[in-house]
Amino acid sequence: MSERAENANAPTQRPVVGITMGEPAGIGPEIVVKALSDPAIRALGRFVIFGMNELLSYAADLAEIEPFWWRLQHDSPRAAYDQVHDVIVLDYDEYSILGQAVHRPTRQGGEASLRFLDDAISAAMKGVGDPGHIDAIVTAPISKESWGLAGCRMPGHTEFLQHRTKSKRVAMMFVAPKLRVILATVHLPLMDVRNVFTIGCVFDPIDLGAAACRELGVASPRIAVCGLNPHASEHGRFGDEENRVITPAIEMAREAGIDARGPFPGDTIFRDAVAGKYDLVVAMYHDQGLIPVKLLAFDEAVNLTVGLPIIRTSPDHGTAFDIVGKNQARADSMKASIRLAADMAQRRRRV
Amino acid sequence: MSERAENANAPTQRPVVGITMGEPAGIGPEIVVKALSDPAIRALGRFVIFGMNELLSYAADLAEIEPFWWRLQHDSPRAAYDQVHDVIVLDYDEYSILGQAVHRPTRQGGEASLRFLDDAISAAMKGVGDPGHIDAIVTAPISKESWGLAGCRMPGHTEFLQHRTKSKRVAMMFVAPKLRVILATVHLPLMDVRNVFTIGCVFDPIDLGAAACRELGVASPRIAVCGLNPHASEHGRFGDEENRVITPAIEMAREAGIDARGPFPGDTIFRDAVAGKYDLVVAMYHDQGLIPVKLLAFDEAVNLTVGLPIIRTSPDHGTAFDIVGKNQARADSMKASIRLAADMAQRRRRV
Repeated sequence: MSERAENANAPTQRPVVGITMGEPAGIGPEIVVKALSDPAIRALGRFVIFGMNELLSYAADLAEIEPFWWRLQHDSPRAAYDQVHDVIVLDYDEYSILGQAVHRPTRQGGEASLRFLDDAISAAMKGVGDPGHIDAIVTAPISKESWGLAGCRMPGHTEFLQHRTKSKRVAMMFVAPKLRVILATVHLPLMDVRNVFTIGCVFDPIDLGAAACRELGVASPRIAVCGLNPHASEHGRFGDEENRVITPAIEMAREAGIDARGPFPGDTIFRDAVAGKYDLVVAMYHDQGLIPVKLLAFDEAVNLTVGLPIIRTSPDHGTAFDIVGKNQARADSMKASIRLAADMAQRRRRV
Repeated sequence: MSERAENANAPTQRPVVGITMGEPAGIGPEIVVKALSDPAIRALGRFVIFGMNELLSYAADLAEIEPFWWRLQHDSPRAAYDQVHDVIVLDYDEYSILGQAVHRPTRQGGEASLRFLDDAISAAMKGVGDPGHIDAIVTAPISKESWGLAGCRMPGHTEFLQHRTKSKRVAMMFVAPKLRVILATVHLPLMDVRNVFTIGCVFDPIDLGAAACRELGVASPRIAVCGLNPHASEHGRFGDEENRVITPAIEMAREAGIDARGPFPGDTIFRDAVAGKYDLVVAMYHDQGLIPVKLLAFDEAVNLTVGLPIIRTSPDHGTAFDIVGKNQARADSMKASIRLAADMAQRRRRV
């Protein structure tokens, strides 16, 4: 706490958090404005929003929030935004043709959200002290359909970030108040898990997750690894992946000095983790990990991409086209994402 | 409430609930004794325990509970136990060779627990009014390994009950205070789900679950059906089972007059169900359904077998060999199982 207070008195020490506005026709503008309108959030750092001033202003207006940012044209000299302003909007007004009435995927929306992300990654890859450097990226949701219409075949942020930063291994991790979960496999047909299910596929999230836990302040993370099959197969009774793949991956991790245990039955291990027995659960597939995360912490879970050279967090929800323009979106998950990004950036600065 | 009170004054109207003691070396004796020592539970009906007096007495002793039952040799004339006693133990003392120190699977344990179950099923299949008839069966946990050692290849209670009652379609349903879940597939390797995943495999639990909900007092059950793939495949983006199997099953159910909807993403639908939007969730595989059940209601969930001609419930946990004889087992799930069985029996009597 005292460190926070000191940093608040020394603005140049505070991390610079970049926020991408995401899909212009989604709830991105609304949750960005709502999150940063909270003085407690603004106190955590300085903020650079990669987005569209018009849509942010419109969202602020609807939510009866006084604009609190300084607008700059995105292609202004980069030095310009290394100034004293706490919140700067880098405005990409060439995309403003979209207007406020479009609440669906479009090519222009895809082009805009790709551009915000691409520029934010470039800023994050710059060295500390370089003009325009940011310490972390928080991404508002994008529309995969818009990206597709814009000719981008990446299925989501994670793959785009991996490609741009040339990262060999990445994993999706979810951080909720009482539960951290990392996934071995993500967006593929469930029955195709068998095609990618190698020892490395299970070892990587254990290894990357252990490193992420340490970066989050857990010095000696205790990691629980789920089984793939019902009851973790009961020693091979229902499936052989536990013996053939998961146990060897756990042994590899233990040899590397990681406190990994399991495989545990998926239906009981999350309760143990929530009770504080483990710092991280490694889930084998999407629903196994996301069912408990969303059930326990729907509005508070943060998606953290681990394995990148840069810090990236994002809220754990989508564009929610159905509630755009209604001032109904909740910014809790966006706030949690900003808190986590600022906290990690602060820790990296201290190292 | 007033009906309950009336029934309490008319003992012959109260349902007769049979309870099988399960694996003798497990926590069965302990949870049976603990559950029935609660006067509120005993007020729900009359009880016939298929088990071993010696082990029940030992468990009562450890828990400092005064024996509250009437012992009868199991092969006494059946009429004998249609008497006024509230709790009768049908004693199978020929298995008492087991002693109290064995806390692991054995052949004798398997033979005993198979016998308890077999005799309870026979009693439940008798007509109302026949000597020895019981209205419902509540089963304490058995050990599959003990059954195996006793030469029985059935993987569990459900299959045994299905076989003995010649039931064509059965399904496992879980009833928790805020959530009901029924499973389309159960104890098989996750990657083998594809081999059994037919329209009937998804339609049956919708149909059986709707009937069970009505029997539980929900006149017009609203049923949510999960997808199999991440995000319910996002319209075929990650897998085709939603379009090829699940949606046709939902349509079949709707044509049959059932209010079934979906397929919904597994990671968000349980939250909606808990919030009261649905009366039942149909999960496609074991962990998808059991993760939320065990996370939300570890000690209160009841396993209900639907599709049988008889009522059968059981606690949602195993034999817990590791805590046997330590007086540590909690009887909450057993109590909930008895309450549900008595409630269903009462409703059937009223029909």
